[in-house]
Amino acid sequence: MISRSPDLFKFRGVVSPRNLRSFHHRHPPPPPAPTMSDLRPPEHQVAGHRASANKLGPLVDGSGLFYKPLQAGDRGEQERAFYEAFSAHAAVPPRIRDAFFPRFHGTRLLPTEARPGEPHPHLVLDDLLAGLQAPSVADIKIGAITWPPSSPEPYVAKCLAKDRGTTSVLLGFRVSGVRVVAPGGAVWRPERPELKALGTAGVRRVLRRYVSSVSGEVADCALAAAVYGGEGGVLSQLRELKAWFEEQTLFHFYSASILLGYDADAVSATGAGGGVRVKLVDFAHVAEGDGVIDHNFLGGLCSLIKFISDIVSEAPETPPLAP
Amino acid sequence: MISRSPDLFKFRGVVSPRNLRSFHHRHPPPPPAPTMSDLRPPEHQVAGHRASANKLGPLVDGSGLFYKPLQAGDRGEQERAFYEAFSAHAAVPPRIRDAFFPRFHGTRLLPTEARPGEPHPHLVLDDLLAGLQAPSVADIKIGAITWPPSSPEPYVAKCLAKDRGTTSVLLGFRVSGVRVVAPGGAVWRPERPELKALGTAGVRRVLRRYVSSVSGEVADCALAAAVYGGEGGVLSQLRELKAWFEEQTLFHFYSASILLGYDADAVSATGAGGGVRVKLVDFAHVAEGDGVIDHNFLGGLCSLIKFISDIVSEAPETPPLAP
Repeated sequence: MISRSPDLFKFRGVVSPRNLRSFHHRHPPPPPAPTMSDLRPPEHQVAGHRASANKLGPLVDGSGLFYKPLQAGDRGEQERAFYEAFSAHAAVPPRIRDAFFPRFHGTRLLPTEARPGEPHPHLVLDDLLAGLQAPSVADIKIGAITWPPSSPEPYVAKCLAKDRGTTSVLLGFRVSGVRVVAPGGAVWRPERPELKALGTAGVRRVLRRYVSSVSGEVADCALAAAVYGGEGGVLSQLRELKAWFEEQTLFHFYSASILLGYDADAVSATGAGGGVRVKLVDFAHVAEGDGVIDHNFLGGLCSLIKFISDIVSEAPETPPLAP
Repeated sequence: MISRSPDLFKFRGVVSPRNLRSFHHRHPPPPPAPTMSDLRPPEHQVAGHRASANKLGPLVDGSGLFYKPLQAGDRGEQERAFYEAFSAHAAVPPRIRDAFFPRFHGTRLLPTEARPGEPHPHLVLDDLLAGLQAPSVADIKIGAITWPPSSPEPYVAKCLAKDRGTTSVLLGFRVSGVRVVAPGGAVWRPERPELKALGTAGVRRVLRRYVSSVSGEVADCALAAAVYGGEGGVLSQLRELKAWFEEQTLFHFYSASILLGYDADAVSATGAGGGVRVKLVDFAHVAEGDGVIDHNFLGGLCSLIKFISDIVSEAPETPPLAP
């Protein structure tokens, strides 16, 4: 069971998402409010709505912060409630919070291009790709089931159709977005319909291409050892996350994603390192765990681990010599 | 990918379940056909239809074999196809096949009470509870999703309603049947509606009562260390099974159950041992894995492991002294 201290925010999961109490007193004061001219849509965004004159979308300020507009309806409050509960939860190991989650700096009203004169509340989070010169990024939505069990019928039906229409039910995850930077700087970024249409073989191809150093269709997996394998690589980080998911019964992360990132410049130049990042994002549908592990996320995570470890096993140990 | 030798049965999963070729040449010849008078419904059956004058149901012959009538429609052929493929599959480790699955002895036409004069095909399997004097048994259906992804819409809707109406979606498993023998011989065997109505706390209660030595409502978990814990206990067997599920990409076991069994007489007398059994059963909805792990079964299995390890952690190391 989740132990709840009465003076902590009570996370109510999807059942009762509204709790508007301010938590600024528990977070370090965020830096001075950025003006609209400081803010821009993140260059490397691979999933979700892109901020524009017509749409709200995430913004970055170039100094390490990421501003995510609160989503409409319950979702925005739900995600804020999760961040507040998670940030303060005594049972979350600090190492897990620091390694695998964006740091939460509270919420902030910001001007937006889409709604001039009507400041919109944003979650203030760490920019997970800050410091990467040439970020290769993948957004992978985890879980065969993306709807919290308490969801109303029409929402279940809508999610189920998407989960069956993509690889979620079959593989326990789906690739929601990907961006790969080749050594010359060429960027491969398939459109959403292409990603939605992927089957098992297509997902395997994308995960291979994510660690390939060529810009064409052929995936050489030259970066697999450096990015997926080795100490601090994706695989070792995913396995650490898995160990936590085998035990944690606090939260069920429906419809959350694992964001992978590495610096294509750094990893190509050195053949190792490259600031590999493995982070959880998108918490609008998190539910209370209530003493039960998140078997749905865990199963999908294990499936992703198998895909990636298969690629590491097949891949060359070191990058091939230049021709 | 599944490697297939051309002279082996080609398991087609749920997509194309019919293959009526006889495989008696690959199985040891079964013992002489039992007559109707040798056969009886198993005394310890906890789930599924019970054989009667009106209904087909499993039968045992008292000498270690279990006869399961082929189910109607595709299901029966599907289950037979699974057993034939699984029995012969070179990539299934013998230790896994022997430890966790009933041995398959082919099929046999048998007279039944429900259909006199019309012999019905039965799968001939090992009787998993043979040799237990006082079997305490639990049938636990594993997986948040019980429908193979290729299922037609009405079947998905029917399964989904059951999976949401029971604990399957929430816990990744549901208790389909249980039978607990107390030291004096009293048997506790809740009815199906009672099991279907269980929530998280109810499932925890049943799993505690399964290893308790008292016949009343109070679960003392006196047998938890002997049955769930220790070498050869349920937990160590489930963990071995889990290690296989983290790697195996041959089969997806939708709607299969884990059957737990132990000898209440033996374990109560000695405080240990008791012939603990952990077996997979019910394979009418198995699908081809096609290079992907069974993340749905694995997730549910991990959830069950967490429930049981929580009980072992809380339980007394040795049975309490008799009053």
